[in-house]
Amino acid sequence: MSARYLEDLAVGQIFRSGKLRVDADQIKSFAAEFDPQPFHLDDVAAQNFIFRGLAASGWHTAALTMRLLVESEFKPAGGILGAGFDEFRWPSPVRPGDELHLESEILEMRPLKSRPDQGLAKVRTTTFNQRGEPVQILVANLFVPRRPA
Amino acid sequence: MSARYLEDLAVGQIFRSGKLRVDADQIKSFAAEFDPQPFHLDDVAAQNFIFRGLAASGWHTAALTMRLLVESEFKPAGGILGAGFDEFRWPSPVRPGDELHLESEILEMRPLKSRPDQGLAKVRTTTFNQRGEPVQILVANLFVPRRPA
Repeated sequence: MSARYLEDLAVGQIFRSGKLRVDADQIKSFAAEFDPQPFHLDDVAAQNFIFRGLAASGWHTAALTMRLLVESEFKPAGGILGAGFDEFRWPSPVRPGDELHLESEILEMRPLKSRPDQGLAKVRTTTFNQRGEPVQILVANLFVPRRPA
Repeated sequence: MSARYLEDLAVGQIFRSGKLRVDADQIKSFAAEFDPQPFHLDDVAAQNFIFRGLAASGWHTAALTMRLLVESEFKPAGGILGAGFDEFRWPSPVRPGDELHLESEILEMRPLKSRPDQGLAKVRTTTFNQRGEPVQILVANLFVPRRPA
């Protein structure tokens, strides 16, 4: 798949990803390094906390989403580079054994006055589990280069 | 340090963290797993991209921030659990050898009508490098339990 320029994108386009499974060991290992709280680290302790069972750190969900996005059909020339986020939330926890995939929809596009060779695309990326439940919703403003003349 | 309830927090309070250093191998290893783009993976290739040198994935910066936050003086009873974000951006890239620390400031607090045992604290967490430059700004609404009667 060739890289996409701003001129190759259109509002309403949807890009899909492959699938990525996450198991309990990966959830605990990520948490031990980056988010060492009992509900992300220990199956038994997690029963007594808000998620009532082991759940992935939200930052793990975000990192897995990025992996899926980088390998998805959405390939801006110059890479995936965020200028900021309009919305970012985790509506449901990710559990051991969940298999994630995502859909990215182009919501808006505009050229950048300050950088004539670049534009911004507002993209809503929704990460789903295998039951189709959204586990993360992220609306990002991404830099996308304009096609060279 | 004992865990904090909503009644222990006040607008304007600032919590500080320890320090955490990130090296080139950690940057590349995180990127290989979660954000495999050339500017996060390869010193030489990175020279030709927007950061003009190796830079950590923003999601790595976010994950390192979470680690610092969990180990900081800010210890809500029940853990650090986000209800959503009002602001989230990466004003400067994190480079190999950077040493990060953070400051978290309580911006607002309110009880939750739907859950009388819980409140929300709006907290701005700014992650700084060793030169005092902000590398991440995150304004999060966090659940904080009310002190049991």
